[in-house]
Amino acid sequence: MSAVKRRPGRRPGSADTRGEILTAARRVFAEKGFDKATVRGIAREAKVDPALVHHYFDTKEGMFVAAMQLPITPQEIIPLLLEGPREEIGERLVRMILRVTASPETREPMVALIRSAMTNDQALAMFREFISNALLFQVADRFQVPHLRIEAAFAQMFGVIMGRYVIKLEPLASASHDELVELLAPTVQRYFTG
Amino acid sequence: MSAVKRRPGRRPGSADTRGEILTAARRVFAEKGFDKATVRGIAREAKVDPALVHHYFDTKEGMFVAAMQLPITPQEIIPLLLEGPREEIGERLVRMILRVTASPETREPMVALIRSAMTNDQALAMFREFISNALLFQVADRFQVPHLRIEAAFAQMFGVIMGRYVIKLEPLASASHDELVELLAPTVQRYFTG
Repeated sequence: MSAVKRRPGRRPGSADTRGEILTAARRVFAEKGFDKATVRGIAREAKVDPALVHHYFDTKEGMFVAAMQLPITPQEIIPLLLEGPREEIGERLVRMILRVTASPETREPMVALIRSAMTNDQALAMFREFISNALLFQVADRFQVPHLRIEAAFAQMFGVIMGRYVIKLEPLASASHDELVELLAPTVQRYFTG
Repeated sequence: MSAVKRRPGRRPGSADTRGEILTAARRVFAEKGFDKATVRGIAREAKVDPALVHHYFDTKEGMFVAAMQLPITPQEIIPLLLEGPREEIGERLVRMILRVTASPETREPMVALIRSAMTNDQALAMFREFISNALLFQVADRFQVPHLRIEAAFAQMFGVIMGRYVIKLEPLASASHDELVELLAPTVQRYFTG
């Protein structure tokens, strides 16, 4: 726990220790990928006790989201999707993705992760493992929908976000949330409820 | 017509002249983007007569496809989509995209163009202008479908191809064409026919 001992009197919530853990986490995720990285391995890399890592980040997913500066964790997304009738999940999911990606501060870290995944094999493996295991398969299992259908829904929304914010296709880039919900919600709904 | 004069006796079909025009085309498309590049400008860059460029490549779209080593031109795609009943366009389009992207030789140049578009602003502008003006808007106008709906269909299939061949999500990457057609054709059909 050297990082903590260095500043006696500071509580474990110190921004320094947290920052050092995140730096170590970025290094370990990049080297090992999401699946093989462990809380214990990241604690070792950061020279802190694993309990302290858990204190700051709860789960490996939470640490990945913080390390990549992503705006929202899968654990926050799933309850939001479960709230409300199942026959409106398409609309809820489309609105949530449009809302989360609307502001540059929350969008840019996601786009940066995607860009690095497109050009770097290690970043790609990390992105694939996180997307599959921490997000898509969790949603699929929670909603009892086959993985392939959830991936078709992901492909639709990934394409929309890339077309809107990276490729900047018009009129897609300027379309309102309501227009896009009207167009896309039935597609996503069909993948979830058949 | 210096490139042709250098090898007297060779007919204008010479691989050298064609190659020189393509090298010039890649340079001009990268500098000016797809919209602002002209056959005349590319001929000037290649030091050949514009008529010779037309002789080899017919249109600017054809030259772009050849320069980027893309496997299929928009002029070939549109008639294939128009063949057959309108209520089966979803299935025809999904099958065609899966077929064209199935073999590495035809897929790799497209993926290379997308990768460079993700990391280079000039390549991105070139990709966006080509996709919009030479492909999506042509299809939209031919089928009298609003541009936004065609872009939603593009987003679905772009996401599927990226998920399948670049991110390599499973089970999407191993799914059969028939499974994917069953899942995706109704989505594309709805964007075309409402």
